Amino acid sequence: MTIRYPNGKKYVPVQKAGLPKKVDLSFSNRGKSLEDELNETNEFYLSRGIAVIHKKPVPIQIVNVNYPARSAAVITEAYFRTPSTTDFNGVWQGKYIDFEAKETKSATSFPLQNIHEHQVDHMKSVSKQAGIVFFIIKFTALDRYFIITYNSFEKYWERMKAGGRKSMTLAEFEDVAVEVVPSYNPRLDYLQAVSTILATSRKANER
Amino acid sequence: MTIRYPNGKKYVPVQKAGLPKKVDLSFSNRGKSLEDELNETNEFYLSRGIAVIHKKPVPIQIVNVNYPARSAAVITEAYFRTPSTTDFNGVWQGKYIDFEAKETKSATSFPLQNIHEHQVDHMKSVSKQAGIVFFIIKFTALDRYFIITYNSFEKYWERMKAGGRKSMTLAEFEDVAVEVVPSYNPRLDYLQAVSTILATSRKANER
Repeated sequence: MTIRYPNGKKYVPVQKAGLPKKVDLSFSNRGKSLEDELNETNEFYLSRGIAVIHKKPVPIQIVNVNYPARSAAVITEAYFRTPSTTDFNGVWQGKYIDFEAKETKSATSFPLQNIHEHQVDHMKSVSKQAGIVFFIIKFTALDRYFIITYNSFEKYWERMKAGGRKSMTLAEFEDVAVEVVPSYNPRLDYLQAVSTILATSRKANER
Repeated sequence: MTIRYPNGKKYVPVQKAGLPKKVDLSFSNRGKSLEDELNETNEFYLSRGIAVIHKKPVPIQIVNVNYPARSAAVITEAYFRTPSTTDFNGVWQGKYIDFEAKETKSATSFPLQNIHEHQVDHMKSVSKQAGIVFFIIKFTALDRYFIITYNSFEKYWERMKAGGRKSMTLAEFEDVAVEVVPSYNPRLDYLQAVSTILATSRKANER
């Protein structure tokens, strides 16, 4: 049976529209997208007063909007735009947090063409402003998650631009990134990993 | 004359779609929207390495997307969603910056129904995380701009919720907010005003 609104319009479930699904707190998270895992984690952080971090809305170029009488505006023509910044940002203990989240199906390397040049430019600017800026990379086939700071990432990006390999290998992640082991609640405690990174760099500076 | 693309589609200027206009660096800024003035200011901050602050994309609920053969996806049905956070955020010297920008045509007061409850909740959470969080309010009829921190704003919001007046008067802004005088470049140096606020609160703490 098709459910219709009083206006005769067909009911379209929100999930079909690519919006975040209801939070599922079960541990059966295999197959869940990295974005969903991060949204769950951020809701946990927010509800416990740990941090305020949100995914930014997808940038859309709106071309046509209809205003049917006495009802809400309907966008009837629009296009996806290339994001000029990263996906997630927010605040944690006064500090600015900014990151891009990416998945790869490869079990051996992460292809750098997944990343836009202007996103890298944005991350460089954030780094210069002393923001905490990084990638969260998920190897879906391995169910492994890595956090790599922009500063550590930069040399692999430069390597590619100098004509070198167009990906970062899993071994390179194991070498320079911090692995995050998924858990129950929060699903992906990436701020714990960020703490580790900050403590390590503080120690390095003290030497 | 109607200009048409090679595909026969009518050319629709980007301005009509409500997207940011080209940056106009002339001083004739009367009539320009506050959002445009802030986007210009943020471009100035970014280009000079002063701060990295962006307007977030408008949140859209996408219901239908068409994928015509060999061309980009077209969104054919979508709706505007109520924003759950503020309009602008970013980083300035390592510190998290978050604000909401609003205009009013009234020459005497700013109506608080312009602000959503969940935006205020968001600002409260940011404040607890030691982020720098404020409103920029423009009285268009007067061409006057005020910055009020969330902490100063809170009591007027609580006053409304307790059944008191549903607006903040201009006199109250003059009393508790910092006025920003528009200039050439940057158009609205709101970070200068934020510096003043931070220095004042530091002094108050030292007493």
